[in-house]
Amino acid sequence: MSVLIVGSTALDSIKTPHAENPRLLGGSASHAAVAASFFSPVKLVGVVGEDFPQKYLRLYRRHQIDLEGLQIVPGKTFHWAGEYEVNMNHRRTLLTELGVFETFTPTLPSSHQDSPFVLLANIAPALQHHVLDQMRRPQFVVADTMDLWLNIALPDLLRLLRRIDGFVLNDSEAHQLTQEDNVFAAIRKIHTLGPRYVIVKKGSHGSILSGPRGYFICPAYPLSAVVDPTGAGDSFVGGLMGYLATARGPVERHFRRAMIHGSVVASFCCEGFGLTRTTRVKRAHIIRRVKELEKLTRF
Amino acid sequence: MSVLIVGSTALDSIKTPHAENPRLLGGSASHAAVAASFFSPVKLVGVVGEDFPQKYLRLYRRHQIDLEGLQIVPGKTFHWAGEYEVNMNHRRTLLTELGVFETFTPTLPSSHQDSPFVLLANIAPALQHHVLDQMRRPQFVVADTMDLWLNIALPDLLRLLRRIDGFVLNDSEAHQLTQEDNVFAAIRKIHTLGPRYVIVKKGSHGSILSGPRGYFICPAYPLSAVVDPTGAGDSFVGGLMGYLATARGPVERHFRRAMIHGSVVASFCCEGFGLTRTTRVKRAHIIRRVKELEKLTRF
Repeated sequence: MSVLIVGSTALDSIKTPHAENPRLLGGSASHAAVAASFFSPVKLVGVVGEDFPQKYLRLYRRHQIDLEGLQIVPGKTFHWAGEYEVNMNHRRTLLTELGVFETFTPTLPSSHQDSPFVLLANIAPALQHHVLDQMRRPQFVVADTMDLWLNIALPDLLRLLRRIDGFVLNDSEAHQLTQEDNVFAAIRKIHTLGPRYVIVKKGSHGSILSGPRGYFICPAYPLSAVVDPTGAGDSFVGGLMGYLATARGPVERHFRRAMIHGSVVASFCCEGFGLTRTTRVKRAHIIRRVKELEKLTRF
Repeated sequence: MSVLIVGSTALDSIKTPHAENPRLLGGSASHAAVAASFFSPVKLVGVVGEDFPQKYLRLYRRHQIDLEGLQIVPGKTFHWAGEYEVNMNHRRTLLTELGVFETFTPTLPSSHQDSPFVLLANIAPALQHHVLDQMRRPQFVVADTMDLWLNIALPDLLRLLRRIDGFVLNDSEAHQLTQEDNVFAAIRKIHTLGPRYVIVKKGSHGSILSGPRGYFICPAYPLSAVVDPTGAGDSFVGGLMGYLATARGPVERHFRRAMIHGSVVASFCCEGFGLTRTTRVKRAHIIRRVKELEKLTRF
Protein backbone atom coordinates (compact mmCIF):
# COMPACT_ATOMS: atom_id res chain seq x y z
CA MET A 1 0.00 0.00 0.00
CA SER A 2 1.07 3.59 -0.49
CA VAL A 3 2.12 6.18 2.06
CA LEU A 4 1.01 9.77 1.94
CA ILE A 5 3.75 12.02 3.28
CA VAL A 6 3.25 15.67 4.07
CA GLY A 7 5.96 17.93 5.42
CA SER A 8 8.54 20.48 4.42
CA THR A 9 10.35 20.45 1.09
CA ALA A 10 13.37 22.68 1.31
CA LEU A 11 16.82 23.62 0.18
CA ASP A 12 19.37 23.06 2.93
CA SER A 13 22.76 24.76 3.10
CA ILE A 14 24.76 22.71 5.54
CA LYS A 15 28.10 23.41 7.12
CA THR A 16 30.04 20.88 9.18
CA PRO A 17 33.57 21.11 10.58
CA HIS A 18 34.71 19.23 7.47
CA ALA A 19 32.76 20.68 4.55
CA GLU A 20 30.07 23.02 3.34
CA ASN A 21 27.29 22.20 0.90
CA PRO A 22 24.84 24.79 -0.36
CA ARG A 23 21.24 24.26 -1.49
CA LEU A 24 20.96 20.51 -1.05
CA LEU A 25 17.55 18.88 -1.33
CA GLY A 26 16.15 18.81 2.20
CA GLY A 27 13.07 19.16 4.35
CA SER A 28 11.25 16.61 6.46
CA ALA A 29 9.04 15.38 3.61
CA SER A 30 11.93 14.98 1.17
CA HIS A 31 13.96 12.83 3.57
CA ALA A 32 10.93 10.81 4.68
CA ALA A 33 9.66 10.29 1.12
CA VAL A 34 12.98 9.00 -0.23
CA ALA A 35 13.34 6.71 2.82
CA ALA A 36 9.80 5.34 2.45
CA SER A 37 10.27 4.84 -1.29
CA PHE A 38 12.61 1.88 -0.65
CA PHE A 39 9.63 -0.07 0.63
CA SER A 40 6.36 1.27 -0.80
CA PRO A 41 4.85 3.78 -3.24
CA VAL A 42 4.92 7.32 -1.89
CA LYS A 43 2.67 10.34 -2.45
CA LEU A 44 4.45 13.56 -1.51
CA VAL A 45 2.56 16.68 -0.40
CA GLY A 46 4.55 19.87 -0.10
CA VAL A 47 5.37 23.17 -1.71
CA VAL A 48 8.37 24.55 -3.57
CA GLY A 49 9.08 27.80 -5.40
CA GLU A 50 9.89 28.40 -9.03
CA ASP A 51 13.59 28.34 -8.16
CA PHE A 52 13.37 24.66 -7.17
CA PRO A 53 16.00 22.84 -9.22
CA GLN A 54 14.68 20.46 -11.89
CA LYS A 55 17.30 17.94 -10.80
CA TYR A 56 15.52 17.54 -7.47
CA LEU A 57 12.19 16.88 -9.21
CA ARG A 58 14.01 14.24 -11.24
CA LEU A 59 15.44 12.82 -8.00
CA TYR A 60 11.94 12.44 -6.52
CA ARG A 61 10.76 10.80 -9.75
CA ARG A 62 13.67 8.37 -9.81
CA HIS A 63 12.32 7.17 -6.46
CA GLN A 64 8.85 6.75 -8.01
CA ILE A 65 7.50 9.45 -5.71
CA ASP A 66 4.08 10.66 -6.83
CA LEU A 67 4.36 14.47 -7.17
CA GLU A 68 0.72 15.26 -7.86
CA GLY A 69 0.50 16.83 -4.38
CA LEU A 70 3.69 18.88 -4.72
CA GLN A 71 2.71 22.48 -5.34
CA ILE A 72 5.11 24.53 -7.46
CA VAL A 73 4.20 28.18 -6.92
CA PRO A 74 5.65 31.62 -7.66
CA GLY A 75 8.29 32.64 -5.16
CA LYS A 76 11.28 31.07 -3.49
CA THR A 77 11.67 27.61 -2.01
CA PHE A 78 12.08 27.33 1.76
CA HIS A 79 15.80 27.74 2.43
CA TRP A 80 17.46 26.68 5.66
CA ALA A 81 21.12 27.06 6.53
CA GLY A 82 22.75 25.47 9.53
CA GLU A 83 26.12 24.66 11.01
CA TYR A 84 27.16 21.63 13.03
CA GLU A 85 29.66 21.68 15.86
CA VAL A 86 32.59 19.30 15.97
CA ASN A 87 30.73 16.49 17.70
CA MET A 88 27.74 16.67 15.29
CA ASN A 89 25.35 16.64 18.23
CA HIS A 90 24.65 20.35 18.27
CA ARG A 91 23.73 22.52 15.37
CA ARG A 92 22.80 26.15 15.06
CA THR A 93 20.56 27.70 12.49
CA LEU A 94 22.30 30.35 10.42
CA LEU A 95 19.36 31.30 8.24
CA THR A 96 15.69 30.50 7.72
CA GLU A 97 13.98 31.89 4.63
CA LEU A 98 10.47 30.46 4.61
CA GLY A 99 9.66 31.69 1.09
CA VAL A 100 6.60 29.93 -0.35
CA PHE A 101 6.45 27.70 2.72
CA GLU A 102 5.17 30.65 4.75
CA THR A 103 1.72 30.52 3.15
CA PHE A 104 1.66 26.78 2.41
CA THR A 105 -1.68 25.03 2.74
CA PRO A 106 -1.43 21.30 2.11
CA THR A 107 -4.38 20.71 -0.18
CA LEU A 108 -4.74 17.04 -1.08
CA PRO A 109 -5.58 15.92 -4.60
CA SER A 110 -8.68 13.69 -4.41
CA SER A 111 -6.53 10.69 -5.35
CA HIS A 112 -4.61 11.22 -2.09
CA GLN A 113 -7.56 11.45 0.25
CA ASP A 114 -8.00 7.74 0.78
CA SER A 115 -4.35 6.85 1.35
CA PRO A 116 -4.23 4.11 3.97
CA PHE A 117 -0.94 5.18 5.55
CA VAL A 118 -0.29 8.80 6.43
CA LEU A 119 2.94 10.28 7.69
CA LEU A 120 2.58 13.80 9.01
CA ALA A 121 6.27 14.64 8.87
CA ASN A 122 7.60 17.61 10.82
CA ILE A 123 5.52 20.66 9.93
CA ALA A 124 3.21 22.99 11.90
CA PRO A 125 0.55 21.00 13.79
CA ALA A 126 -2.17 23.19 12.24
CA LEU A 127 -1.12 21.93 8.81
CA GLN A 128 -0.98 18.36 10.08
CA HIS A 129 -4.59 18.84 11.23
CA HIS A 130 -5.53 20.30 7.86
CA VAL A 131 -4.27 17.16 6.13
CA LEU A 132 -6.24 14.87 8.44
CA ASP A 133 -9.36 17.00 7.87
CA GLN A 134 -9.20 16.07 4.18
CA MET A 135 -8.59 12.34 4.66
CA ARG A 136 -11.22 9.61 4.46
CA ARG A 137 -10.60 7.25 7.38
CA PRO A 138 -6.88 6.52 6.96
CA GLN A 139 -5.78 3.15 8.32
CA PHE A 140 -2.69 4.32 10.20
CA VAL A 141 -1.49 7.85 10.91
CA VAL A 142 1.89 8.76 12.37
CA ALA A 143 3.04 12.29 13.20
CA ASP A 144 6.52 13.62 13.80
CA THR A 145 7.23 17.01 15.39
CA MET A 146 9.99 19.31 16.63
CA ASP A 147 10.72 21.48 19.66
CA LEU A 148 9.54 24.62 17.84
CA TRP A 149 5.92 23.36 17.83
CA LEU A 150 6.09 22.46 21.50
CA ASN A 151 7.09 26.06 22.12
CA ILE A 152 4.71 27.94 19.84
CA ALA A 153 1.85 25.56 18.94
CA LEU A 154 1.34 23.27 21.92
CA PRO A 155 -2.50 23.39 21.99
CA ASP A 156 -2.65 22.37 18.30
CA LEU A 157 -0.15 19.60 18.94
CA LEU A 158 -2.04 18.25 21.95
CA ARG A 159 -5.23 18.21 19.90
CA LEU A 160 -3.36 16.35 17.15
CA LEU A 161 -2.21 13.65 19.57
CA ARG A 162 -5.83 12.55 19.99
CA ARG A 163 -6.20 12.06 16.21
CA ILE A 164 -3.16 9.90 15.42
CA ASP A 165 -2.04 6.30 15.94
CA GLY A 166 1.67 6.91 16.37
CA PHE A 167 3.71 9.86 17.62
CA VAL A 168 7.42 10.29 16.99
CA LEU A 169 9.65 12.69 18.88
CA ASN A 170 13.16 12.83 20.22
CA ASP A 171 14.14 12.36 23.84
CA SER A 172 14.60 16.03 24.67
CA GLU A 173 11.21 16.82 23.14
CA ALA A 174 9.67 14.02 25.19
CA HIS A 175 11.12 15.58 28.33
CA GLN A 176 9.93 19.03 27.28
CA LEU A 177 6.40 17.81 26.53
CA THR A 178 5.93 15.84 29.75
CA GLN A 179 8.30 17.45 32.25
CA GLU A 180 9.52 13.91 32.92
CA ASP A 181 13.27 13.36 32.91
CA ASN A 182 12.95 9.61 32.72
CA VAL A 183 12.18 8.59 29.16
CA PHE A 184 9.92 5.67 30.14
CA ALA A 185 7.93 7.86 32.51
CA ALA A 186 7.65 10.41 29.67
CA ILE A 187 6.40 7.74 27.27
CA ARG A 188 3.73 6.66 29.71
CA LYS A 189 2.46 10.24 29.95
CA ILE A 190 2.45 10.65 26.17
CA HIS A 191 0.23 7.57 25.81
CA THR A 192 -2.33 9.23 28.07
CA LEU A 193 -2.40 12.15 25.61
CA GLY A 194 -3.67 9.90 22.84
CA PRO A 195 -1.32 7.83 20.69
CA ARG A 196 -1.21 4.03 21.01
CA TYR A 197 2.32 4.01 19.65
CA VAL A 198 5.00 6.31 21.00
CA ILE A 199 8.44 6.34 19.42
CA VAL A 200 11.30 8.22 21.06
CA LYS A 201 14.37 8.87 18.93
CA LYS A 202 17.73 9.06 20.73
CA GLY A 203 20.11 9.74 17.84
CA SER A 204 23.17 7.51 17.95
CA HIS A 205 21.69 5.74 21.00
CA GLY A 206 18.86 4.29 18.90
CA SER A 207 15.16 4.59 19.63
CA ILE A 208 12.41 3.19 21.81
CA LEU A 209 9.04 1.94 20.66
CA SER A 210 6.17 1.72 23.09
CA GLY A 211 2.99 0.09 21.83
CA PRO A 212 0.30 -2.47 22.67
CA ARG A 213 2.95 -5.21 22.86
CA GLY A 214 5.17 -3.24 25.23
CA TYR A 215 8.58 -1.74 24.61
CA PHE A 216 11.06 -2.42 21.88
CA ILE A 217 14.62 -1.17 22.30
CA CYS A 218 15.78 -0.38 18.78
CA PRO A 219 19.51 0.02 18.16
CA ALA A 220 21.13 2.58 15.90
CA TYR A 221 23.40 1.10 13.26
CA PRO A 222 27.00 1.70 14.42
CA LEU A 223 28.70 4.38 12.36
CA SER A 224 32.29 5.32 13.01
CA ALA A 225 31.88 8.57 11.11
CA VAL A 226 28.89 10.84 10.67
CA VAL A 227 29.10 13.18 7.68
CA ASP A 228 25.81 15.05 8.16
CA PRO A 229 22.96 14.00 10.47
CA THR A 230 20.42 16.40 8.90
CA GLY A 231 17.26 14.50 8.06
CA ALA A 232 18.22 11.31 9.91
CA GLY A 233 15.10 11.48 12.08
CA ASP A 234 12.91 12.10 9.02
CA SER A 235 14.58 9.21 7.21
CA PHE A 236 13.95 6.99 10.22
CA VAL A 237 10.23 7.67 10.34
CA GLY A 238 9.95 7.60 6.55
CA GLY A 239 11.60 4.19 6.37
CA LEU A 240 9.43 2.97 9.25
CA MET A 241 6.19 4.06 7.54
CA GLY A 242 7.26 2.75 4.13
CA TYR A 243 8.00 -0.62 5.69
CA LEU A 244 4.70 -0.72 7.60
CA ALA A 245 2.71 0.19 4.48
CA THR A 246 4.17 -2.71 2.53
CA ALA A 247 3.83 -5.36 5.23
CA ARG A 248 0.77 -7.63 5.30
CA GLY A 249 -1.50 -8.16 8.23
CA PRO A 250 -1.80 -6.10 11.41
CA VAL A 251 0.62 -3.20 11.83
CA GLU A 252 1.63 -4.41 15.30
CA ARG A 253 3.16 -7.57 13.89
CA HIS A 254 5.66 -5.65 11.78
CA PHE A 255 6.40 -2.63 13.92
CA ARG A 256 9.72 -3.80 15.34
CA ARG A 257 11.16 -4.68 11.96
CA ALA A 258 9.78 -1.39 10.63
CA MET A 259 11.75 0.44 13.33
CA ILE A 260 14.90 -1.47 12.39
CA HIS A 261 14.47 -0.65 8.71
CA GLY A 262 13.92 3.02 9.55
CA SER A 263 17.02 2.94 11.72
CA VAL A 264 19.08 1.49 8.87
CA VAL A 265 17.89 4.07 6.33
CA ALA A 266 18.72 6.80 8.86
CA SER A 267 22.24 5.39 9.16
CA PHE A 268 22.77 5.80 5.42
CA CYS A 269 21.38 9.33 5.63
CA CYS A 270 24.10 10.26 8.15
CA GLU A 271 26.84 9.03 5.82
CA GLY A 272 26.45 11.81 3.27
CA PHE A 273 25.37 15.42 3.01
CA GLY A 274 21.64 15.90 2.61
CA LEU A 275 20.23 13.02 0.58
CA THR A 276 23.42 12.31 -1.36
CA ARG A 277 24.12 8.98 0.31
CA THR A 278 20.52 7.88 0.81
CA THR A 279 19.69 8.24 -2.88
CA ARG A 280 22.49 5.81 -3.79
CA VAL A 281 21.18 3.08 -1.48
CA LYS A 282 19.84 -0.17 -2.89
CA ARG A 283 17.46 -2.57 -1.16
CA ALA A 284 20.33 -5.06 -0.85
CA HIS A 285 22.36 -2.55 1.21
CA ILE A 286 19.44 -2.09 3.58
CA ILE A 287 18.90 -5.83 3.95
CA ARG A 288 22.60 -6.30 4.71
CA ARG A 289 22.56 -3.74 7.54
CA VAL A 290 19.34 -5.15 8.98
CA LYS A 291 21.04 -8.55 9.16
CA GLU A 292 24.09 -6.95 10.76
CA LEU A 293 21.89 -5.31 13.39
CA GLU A 294 20.39 -8.72 14.12
CA LYS A 295 23.88 -10.07 14.76
CA LEU A 296 24.95 -7.02 16.76
CA THR A 297 22.10 -7.33 19.23
CA ARG A 298 21.68 -11.10 19.61
CA PHE A 299 22.80 -12.69 22.86
CA MET B 1 35.96 -20.03 39.19
CA SER B 2 36.46 -17.12 41.56
CA VAL B 3 36.92 -13.44 40.83
CA LEU B 4 39.42 -11.26 42.62
CA ILE B 5 38.07 -7.74 42.96
CA VAL B 6 40.16 -4.80 44.07
CA GLY B 7 38.86 -1.27 44.38
CA SER B 8 37.52 1.23 46.85
CA THR B 9 35.47 0.30 49.90
CA ALA B 10 33.72 3.37 51.21
CA LEU B 11 30.88 4.94 53.07
CA ASP B 12 28.68 6.99 50.76
CA SER B 13 26.39 9.78 51.87
CA ILE B 14 24.01 10.31 49.00
CA LYS B 15 21.50 13.05 48.41
CA THR B 16 18.93 12.99 45.63
CA PRO B 17 16.03 15.35 44.96
CA HIS B 18 13.85 12.85 46.82
CA ALA B 19 15.86 11.65 49.79
CA GLU B 20 19.10 11.67 51.70
CA ASN B 21 20.96 8.65 53.02
CA PRO B 22 24.12 8.93 55.11
CA ARG B 23 26.97 6.43 55.37
CA LEU B 24 25.70 3.72 53.06
CA LEU B 25 28.02 0.92 52.05
CA GLY B 26 29.68 2.07 48.83
CA GLY B 27 32.87 2.12 46.79
CA SER B 28 33.67 0.50 43.48
CA ALA B 29 34.80 -2.80 45.02
CA SER B 30 31.72 -3.12 47.25
CA HIS B 31 29.29 -2.66 44.36
CA ALA B 32 31.28 -4.89 42.03
CA ALA B 33 31.78 -7.62 44.64
CA VAL B 34 28.10 -7.88 45.56
CA ALA B 35 27.16 -7.90 41.85
CA ALA B 36 29.72 -10.61 41.02
CA SER B 37 28.63 -12.69 44.02
CA PHE B 38 25.37 -13.61 42.28
CA PHE B 39 27.36 -15.68 39.82
CA SER B 40 30.69 -16.78 41.32
CA PRO B 41 32.82 -16.78 44.49
CA VAL B 42 34.42 -13.39 45.14
CA LYS B 43 37.63 -12.37 46.87
CA LEU B 44 37.52 -8.71 47.90
CA VAL B 45 40.66 -6.61 48.30
CA GLY B 46 40.26 -3.21 49.89
CA VAL B 47 40.74 -1.19 53.04
CA VAL B 48 38.39 0.17 55.71
CA GLY B 49 38.91 1.97 58.99
CA GLU B 50 38.01 0.94 62.50
CA ASP B 51 34.77 2.91 62.16
CA PHE B 52 33.53 0.55 59.46
CA PRO B 53 30.13 -0.76 60.60
CA GLN B 54 29.98 -4.43 61.52
CA LYS B 55 26.71 -4.68 59.63
CA TYR B 56 28.56 -4.05 56.37
CA LEU B 57 31.03 -6.82 57.11
CA ARG B 58 28.04 -9.07 57.71
CA LEU B 59 26.55 -7.89 54.41
CA TYR B 60 29.72 -8.92 52.54
CA ARG B 61 29.68 -12.27 54.31
CA ARG B 62 26.03 -12.89 53.49
CA HIS B 63 27.15 -12.69 49.88
CA GLN B 64 29.90 -15.26 50.55
CA ILE B 65 32.52 -12.63 49.78
CA ASP B 66 35.98 -13.73 50.94
CA LEU B 67 37.29 -10.92 53.16
CA GLU B 68 40.83 -12.21 53.73
CA GLY B 69 42.11 -9.38 51.52
CA LEU B 70 40.07 -6.67 53.24
CA GLN B 71 42.38 -4.67 55.47
CA ILE B 72 40.84 -3.19 58.61
CA VAL B 73 43.26 -0.55 59.88
CA PRO B 74 43.32 2.27 62.44
CA GLY B 75 41.68 5.41 61.13
CA LYS B 76 38.56 6.36 59.28
CA THR B 77 36.91 4.65 56.32
CA PHE B 78 36.89 6.52 53.01
CA HIS B 79 33.80 8.75 53.11
CA TRP B 80 32.26 10.27 50.00
CA ALA B 81 29.25 12.55 49.89
CA GLY B 82 27.48 13.58 46.73
CA GLU B 83 24.29 15.13 45.48
CA TYR B 84 22.31 14.31 42.34
CA GLU B 85 20.43 16.84 40.26
CA VAL B 86 16.80 16.32 39.32
CA ASN B 87 17.49 14.28 36.19
CA MET B 88 19.97 11.97 37.97
CA ASN B 89 22.46 12.43 35.16
CA HIS B 90 24.65 14.95 36.92
CA ARG B 91 26.06 14.73 40.38
CA ARG B 92 28.37 16.89 42.36
CA THR B 93 30.73 15.81 45.06
CA LEU B 94 30.03 17.48 48.39
CA LEU B 95 32.82 15.85 50.36
CA THR B 96 35.72 13.44 49.95
CA GLU B 97 37.46 12.21 53.10
CA LEU B 98 40.01 9.66 51.96
CA GLY B 99 40.82 8.44 55.46
CA VAL B 100 42.64 5.09 55.45
CA PHE B 101 42.20 4.92 51.70
CA GLU B 102 44.86 7.61 51.28
CA THR B 103 47.69 5.24 52.16
CA PHE B 104 46.09 2.03 50.90
CA THR B 105 48.39 -0.52 49.33
CA PRO B 106 46.50 -3.55 48.02
CA THR B 107 48.63 -6.39 49.29
CA LEU B 108 47.31 -9.76 48.17
CA PRO B 109 47.17 -12.74 50.50
CA SER B 110 49.02 -15.62 48.82
CA SER B 111 45.70 -17.45 48.39
CA HIS B 112 44.60 -14.59 46.10
CA GLN B 113 47.62 -14.49 43.84
CA ASP B 114 46.50 -17.18 41.45
CA SER B 115 42.93 -16.02 40.99
CA PRO B 116 41.98 -16.71 37.38
CA PHE B 117 39.67 -13.72 36.96
CA VAL B 118 40.73 -10.28 38.15
CA LEU B 119 38.61 -7.16 38.22
CA LEU B 120 40.59 -4.00 38.83
CA ALA B 121 37.60 -1.88 39.80
CA ASN B 122 37.89 1.89 39.82
CA ILE B 123 40.95 2.89 41.85
CA ALA B 124 44.26 4.64 41.08
CA PRO B 125 46.03 2.97 38.13
CA ALA B 126 49.20 2.68 40.22
CA LEU B 127 47.31 0.45 42.65
CA GLN B 128 45.83 -1.55 39.78
CA HIS B 129 49.43 -2.13 38.59
CA HIS B 130 50.46 -3.12 42.09
CA VAL B 131 47.78 -5.83 42.13
CA LEU B 132 48.87 -7.20 38.77
CA ASP B 133 52.50 -7.23 39.93
CA GLN B 134 51.52 -9.72 42.62
CA MET B 135 49.47 -12.02 40.40
CA ARG B 136 50.64 -15.29 38.86
CA ARG B 137 49.43 -15.31 35.27
CA PRO B 138 45.74 -14.51 35.71
CA GLN B 139 43.49 -15.87 32.98
CA PHE B 140 41.44 -12.75 32.36
CA VAL B 141 41.93 -9.22 33.68
CA VAL B 142 39.47 -6.37 33.31
CA ALA B 143 40.05 -2.82 34.53
CA ASP B 144 37.56 -0.03 35.12
CA THR B 145 38.55 3.60 35.57
CA MET B 146 37.19 7.14 36.02
CA ASP B 147 37.83 10.61 34.60
CA LEU B 148 39.99 11.55 37.60
CA TRP B 149 42.70 9.07 36.55
CA LEU B 150 42.62 10.31 32.97
CA ASN B 151 43.33 13.75 34.38
CA ILE B 152 45.98 13.00 36.98
CA ALA B 153 47.44 9.55 36.21
CA LEU B 154 47.27 9.14 32.45
CA PRO B 155 50.79 7.63 31.96
CA ASP B 156 50.04 4.95 34.58
CA LEU B 157 46.70 4.24 32.95
CA LEU B 158 48.19 3.96 29.46
CA ARG B 159 50.78 1.53 30.79
CA LEU B 160 48.00 -0.46 32.45
CA LEU B 161 46.09 -0.78 29.15
CA ARG B 162 48.91 -2.93 27.79
CA ARG B 163 48.58 -5.36 30.71
CA ILE B 164 44.86 -6.10 30.67
CA ASP B 165 42.41 -8.07 28.55
CA GLY B 166 39.38 -5.83 28.93
CA PHE B 167 38.95 -2.13 29.62
CA VAL B 168 35.72 -0.55 30.83
CA LEU B 169 34.97 3.15 30.71
CA ASN B 170 32.03 5.41 30.06
CA ASP B 171 31.40 7.30 26.85
CA SER B 172 32.64 10.68 28.04
CA GLU B 173 35.84 9.07 29.34
CA ALA B 174 36.29 7.35 25.97
CA HIS B 175 36.05 10.73 24.27
CA GLN B 176 38.44 12.28 26.77
CA LEU B 177 41.00 9.50 26.36
CA THR B 178 40.98 9.44 22.55
CA GLN B 179 39.83 12.92 21.54
CA GLU B 180 37.33 11.12 19.31
CA ASP B 181 33.73 12.28 19.51
CA ASN B 182 32.41 9.23 17.73
CA VAL B 183 32.23 6.33 20.16
CA PHE B 184 33.13 3.67 17.57
CA ALA B 185 36.13 5.68 16.42
CA ALA B 186 37.12 6.04 20.08
CA ILE B 187 36.81 2.29 20.63
CA ARG B 188 39.05 1.57 17.67
CA LYS B 189 41.73 3.86 19.13
CA ILE B 190 41.47 2.25 22.56
CA HIS B 191 42.09 -1.18 21.04
CA THR B 192 45.37 0.13 19.63
CA LEU B 193 46.38 1.04 23.20
CA GLY B 194 46.22 -2.60 24.26
CA PRO B 195 42.97 -4.23 25.36
CA ARG B 196 41.31 -6.86 23.18
CA TYR B 197 37.96 -6.08 24.76
CA VAL B 198 36.69 -2.54 25.10
CA ILE B 199 33.42 -1.86 26.88
CA VAL B 200 31.86 1.59 26.78
CA LYS B 201 29.12 2.32 29.30
CA LYS B 202 26.41 4.77 28.28
CA GLY B 203 24.20 4.85 31.38
CA SER B 204 20.52 4.51 30.53
CA HIS B 205 21.46 4.09 26.85
CA GLY B 206 23.14 0.75 27.57
CA SER B 207 26.68 -0.22 26.65
CA ILE B 208 28.83 -1.33 23.75
CA LEU B 209 31.18 -4.29 23.67
CA SER B 210 33.96 -4.44 21.13
CA GLY B 211 35.97 -7.63 20.98
CA PRO B 212 37.40 -10.25 18.66
CA ARG B 213 33.90 -11.11 17.42
CA GLY B 214 33.01 -7.48 16.67
CA TYR B 215 30.52 -5.24 18.38
CA PHE B 216 27.66 -6.08 20.67
CA ILE B 217 25.05 -3.43 21.39
CA CYS B 218 23.92 -4.12 24.93
CA PRO B 219 20.67 -2.56 26.13
CA ALA B 220 20.01 -1.09 29.55
CA TYR B 221 17.04 -2.58 31.33
CA PRO B 222 14.20 -0.03 31.07
CA LEU B 223 13.56 1.67 34.40
CA SER B 224 10.80 4.23 34.76
CA ALA B 225 12.31 5.53 37.99
CA VAL B 226 15.91 5.74 39.14
CA VAL B 227 16.35 6.08 42.89
CA ASP B 228 20.15 6.33 43.03
CA PRO B 229 22.54 5.50 40.17
CA THR B 230 25.64 5.46 42.41
CA GLY B 231 27.59 2.26 41.79
CA ALA B 232 25.60 1.20 38.71
CA GLY B 233 28.73 1.11 36.56
CA ASP B 234 30.59 -0.89 39.22
CA SER B 235 27.65 -3.28 39.50
CA PHE B 236 27.64 -3.69 35.75
CA VAL B 237 31.29 -4.68 35.52
CA GLY B 238 31.05 -6.78 38.69
CA GLY B 239 28.09 -8.74 37.31
CA LEU B 240 29.88 -9.12 33.99
CA MET B 241 33.04 -10.54 35.59
CA GLY B 242 31.10 -12.78 37.96
CA TYR B 243 29.20 -14.23 35.02
CA LEU B 244 32.35 -14.73 32.94
CA ALA B 245 34.13 -16.46 35.81
CA THR B 246 31.37 -19.00 36.20
CA ALA B 247 30.88 -19.79 32.50
CA ARG B 248 32.65 -22.75 30.93
CA GLY B 249 34.83 -22.60 27.86
CA PRO B 250 36.36 -19.57 26.15
CA VAL B 251 35.47 -16.17 27.56
CA GLU B 252 34.49 -14.90 24.12
CA ARG B 253 31.59 -17.32 23.90
CA HIS B 254 29.91 -15.90 26.99
CA PHE B 255 30.79 -12.23 26.78
CA ARG B 256 27.49 -10.99 25.39
CA ARG B 257 25.41 -12.76 28.00
CA ALA B 258 27.87 -11.55 30.64
CA MET B 259 27.21 -7.96 29.50
CA ILE B 260 23.46 -8.54 29.72
CA HIS B 261 23.76 -9.98 33.22
CA GLY B 262 25.91 -7.02 34.27
CA SER B 263 23.34 -4.67 32.80
CA VAL B 264 20.54 -6.34 34.75
CA VAL B 265 22.40 -6.20 38.07
CA ALA B 266 23.11 -2.51 37.38
CA SER B 267 19.39 -1.92 36.86
CA PHE B 268 18.65 -3.28 40.31
CA CYS B 269 21.42 -1.12 41.75
CA CYS B 270 19.66 2.00 40.41
CA GLU B 271 16.40 1.07 42.11
CA GLY B 272 17.61 1.69 45.64
CA PHE B 273 20.07 3.80 47.58
CA GLY B 274 23.58 2.40 47.68
CA LEU B 275 23.39 -1.38 47.80
CA THR B 276 20.00 -1.56 49.49
CA ARG B 277 18.14 -2.91 46.46
CA THR B 278 20.98 -5.02 45.03
CA THR B 279 21.42 -6.96 48.25
CA ARG B 280 17.78 -8.06 48.15
CA VAL B 281 18.09 -9.50 44.65
CA LYS B 282 17.73 -13.23 44.03
CA ARG B 283 19.06 -15.16 41.05
CA ALA B 284 15.47 -15.66 39.87
CA HIS B 285 14.96 -11.87 39.63
CA ILE B 286 18.06 -11.56 37.49
CA ILE B 287 17.01 -14.40 35.20
CA ARG B 288 13.58 -12.80 34.77
CA ARG B 289 15.05 -9.46 33.66
CA VAL B 290 17.52 -11.17 31.32
CA LYS B 291 14.55 -12.89 29.65
CA GLU B 292 12.70 -9.60 29.47
CA LEU B 293 15.69 -7.96 27.78
CA GLU B 294 15.68 -10.78 25.25
CA LYS B 295 12.05 -10.00 24.44
CA LEU B 296 12.62 -6.23 24.41
CA THR B 297 15.36 -6.44 21.79
CA ARG B 298 14.20 -9.27 19.51
CA PHE B 299 12.91 -8.33 16.07
